[in-house]
Amino acid sequence: MEVMRILGVDPGLARLGFGIIERGPGDSLRHVAHGCIETEADAPLPERLQRIFHRLTELCREHQPSVMAVEELFFSRNTTTAFTVGQARGVALLAGAEAGIAVMEYTPMQVKQAVTGYGRADKRQIQDMVRILLRLSSAPKPDDAADALAVAIAHAHTGRLGELEARLAAKNRTGWVWERGRFR
Amino acid sequence: MEVMRILGVDPGLARLGFGIIERGPGDSLRHVAHGCIETEADAPLPERLQRIFHRLTELCREHQPSVMAVEELFFSRNTTTAFTVGQARGVALLAGAEAGIAVMEYTPMQVKQAVTGYGRADKRQIQDMVRILLRLSSAPKPDDAADALAVAIAHAHTGRLGELEARLAAKNRTGWVWERGRFR
Repeated sequence: MEVMRILGVDPGLARLGFGIIERGPGDSLRHVAHGCIETEADAPLPERLQRIFHRLTELCREHQPSVMAVEELFFSRNTTTAFTVGQARGVALLAGAEAGIAVMEYTPMQVKQAVTGYGRADKRQIQDMVRILLRLSSAPKPDDAADALAVAIAHAHTGRLGELEARLAAKNRTGWVWERGRFR
Repeated sequence: MEVMRILGVDPGLARLGFGIIERGPGDSLRHVAHGCIETEADAPLPERLQRIFHRLTELCREHQPSVMAVEELFFSRNTTTAFTVGQARGVALLAGAEAGIAVMEYTPMQVKQAVTGYGRADKRQIQDMVRILLRLSSAPKPDDAADALAVAIAHAHTGRLGELEARLAAKNRTGWVWERGRFR
């Protein structure tokens, strides 16, 4: 099986978390890098968006991921926050598309489910699972970077399920049936 | 006085309005172009954002505006709409910044005030004023394009005030005083 490199993104304007992992043979996961893109609150908004766009473009060139996985946001304390985060998110999705890589979106519940097997896990549980799954000695900091790694892991796990489902569908089309855990 | 070309933008994901005007000698306004960038609801989000980004980049190259004026959005029916519009808006601001032109933001109230002289004008009043100020035979369609022209006009009017204020400040620094409508 081919190694897949995934860039996870937790969108934000003041601080955008990113995390890069690899999914290798036997679904093994390997940590590559993580960090934050920060922008100054007193800088003009167009400049802040440019910084996010250019930095993500650089990360794509440097690390050559084949997929960008971005957290899908539905809720927010208020619409002003939603507008602000939405602007940063739009620029992040554009950076992935312009870099020519696949851009996938995952809801917070999908991330929780894929990382911990439990859709209502709390922030601390997710960070612990990220640390354990990537065999890190301590939880990745800051939280935004840990969240970005979680989205990348979610894609690694969900993508694998998607492949199994596709293979299963192909088997079914040729007369095979998935029964009690194997094809018959 | 130099002619200033302004690209007004009314952000939206399914439909983004644009309007290009010129402010010439004696603060005269001239209509150059208006229209909409539309994206398909069933297309992937990153592709829709790319379309907006590329089309706005083309418009900047084609019409060479020196300023992009964008409506600043604070309110929305719900946070999901805010996220959606925010994403398109972020990409629009980025397109202006990447084209190397000044990007200015105006609140809906500033636009109303600058176009009609009345901060609580309704949509119809604004469209009538846009038609009259640009000497168009009928109201520009669709509404998103008319709104974009209104933002451009707001910049033309407000920008003029800003210049007067800057000149005034410069005069003050050199010992001149603005009094009863002229410098003394």
